[in-house]
Amino acid sequence: MDTSLLIVGSLAFDDLEMPSGTYVDVVGGAATYAALSASFYSPVRIVGVVGDDFAEATLEDLRRRGIDTEGVEHAPGKTFRWRGRYADDLMSRTTLDTQLNVFADFQPKIPVSYRDTPFVLLGNIHPALQVSVLDQVPKPMLVAADTMNFWIHGEPKAVGELLSRIDLLVINDEEARDLSGMQNLVKAAADIRRRGPSRLIIKRGEYGAVLFDEAGIFFIPAYPLETVLDPTGAGDCFAGGLMGYVARTGDASESTLRRAMFFASTMGSFCVEDIGPRRLWSLTRDELSARIEAFREMVDYGGGLLVPE
Amino acid sequence: MDTSLLIVGSLAFDDLEMPSGTYVDVVGGAATYAALSASFYSPVRIVGVVGDDFAEATLEDLRRRGIDTEGVEHAPGKTFRWRGRYADDLMSRTTLDTQLNVFADFQPKIPVSYRDTPFVLLGNIHPALQVSVLDQVPKPMLVAADTMNFWIHGEPKAVGELLSRIDLLVINDEEARDLSGMQNLVKAAADIRRRGPSRLIIKRGEYGAVLFDEAGIFFIPAYPLETVLDPTGAGDCFAGGLMGYVARTGDASESTLRRAMFFASTMGSFCVEDIGPRRLWSLTRDELSARIEAFREMVDYGGGLLVPE
Repeated sequence: MDTSLLIVGSLAFDDLEMPSGTYVDVVGGAATYAALSASFYSPVRIVGVVGDDFAEATLEDLRRRGIDTEGVEHAPGKTFRWRGRYADDLMSRTTLDTQLNVFADFQPKIPVSYRDTPFVLLGNIHPALQVSVLDQVPKPMLVAADTMNFWIHGEPKAVGELLSRIDLLVINDEEARDLSGMQNLVKAAADIRRRGPSRLIIKRGEYGAVLFDEAGIFFIPAYPLETVLDPTGAGDCFAGGLMGYVARTGDASESTLRRAMFFASTMGSFCVEDIGPRRLWSLTRDELSARIEAFREMVDYGGGLLVPE
Repeated sequence: MDTSLLIVGSLAFDDLEMPSGTYVDVVGGAATYAALSASFYSPVRIVGVVGDDFAEATLEDLRRRGIDTEGVEHAPGKTFRWRGRYADDLMSRTTLDTQLNVFADFQPKIPVSYRDTPFVLLGNIHPALQVSVLDQVPKPMLVAADTMNFWIHGEPKAVGELLSRIDLLVINDEEARDLSGMQNLVKAAADIRRRGPSRLIIKRGEYGAVLFDEAGIFFIPAYPLETVLDPTGAGDCFAGGLMGYVARTGDASESTLRRAMFFASTMGSFCVEDIGPRRLWSLTRDELSARIEAFREMVDYGGGLLVPE
């Protein structure tokens, strides 16, 4: 059984102005974070574009983690670059500079060897490009996508087309409210699911995430951390861990997705513990297992029905 | 086995300026909300004070719900009154007027028949008065208390004394940050627990609540509602449902407290569905059971250990 996960999205350099210091040329991008996260669970195939300044050694590092980089296009010019400044409490950030560079003309080309990949995660790129990926991957078992307010407002028609083509949308609460025009998240979720994806995950940062699907509603908390250094990429690690676990099981059922939420939230929690994706590079399987178990204990009420005895 | 719960706190009239309209003379107060909530699970004994304007019929309604009102003192003058205006999204509120009236001179007097009550919930009143209650109740199995920023800043010494006398503190996230001076909730919880209560619940409104105790950390979400009419009293209903369930089991163990979190959050969810405590008066056992079960399903991941299979 093929348990591979195809991830399409950005590879980037981030310049991060954090309360703890300024970090430049941090390797980032949604596809990088998601792929690193997913690689703990399943073979990953990545599609994106890098410029002349992106070190081959970095791609080699990804390959050593089981990430197939055949789909990473090399274009003349510079890699996508983002510079941002975080508030002291890390709760908000300001984009100081965005240089699309080679990403401006990115057209995802799915290698022939990727076309039967059963699980697909479409990172946050232009919704028309996300749809173009699906035109090249005939019959995936489960397609998940991310998007953002920039596309929701600027490309509503393409976002509508995307919604009609995917199984699972993974966005944050602000995006869910923007996309639906509804403040109440239960109503927002119902509206978004009517427009296409039968499954929706709304991420709520430090408050965890909520899954809406045919089985109902499912909550997962965020792992409570004493120290958070950098929230960059946490949402992508969430989505990567989610889909990596689903791919590993080879089962797109609702019960698998519920279990996958633990792995998703756990990967997001590791991501924020260090600058950029650094923590993901050092993370061991033992650390991962220990946190997953600690996480499970935090929602363990003893099982069984709850009746006023 | 005595499964009674003693609740000490305010009985009040609230004037509520809500987006849905203005409602005056709404029977409220922390003790009222908590007692109504707890009464679904255990016998309740209430201590508070009302003025000449508080209808005997209301106390009779409480008694019909199994709430002992012997401890409700009748003082000459008017009942405590609060007037507040909620924002359109109900996420914040402004106090327009507070008239302490008979509450200004309130000194909790615990009737002799209440003194062996095994479970105690101290609503948000002056911390010195909360402590005075404990001087009158010799050996409770579990004492829970609420407090607020007004006392945290204005009466730090009395709050410190309170903390050293209780088993469980139930406050919201803003209060936890104020009380500890720490922004991070994990650190805040550790600080507060060092100062007395071995157990701490931090309420996070629409994001649920977190329990910190010797068994670790436990999360409960808030029940996702499509319609919220009035958040007044939701925190008191949470605490009442929590302690009512604990009292019913007669068991103050950590595992009981985890299960109690479901009942607490469920009672809070009913409370906000209508103006004032109205929904609690109409709530049936069948509605309660159905929501508890729906709630349980929202955190049901299938059970067992979580390992990347």
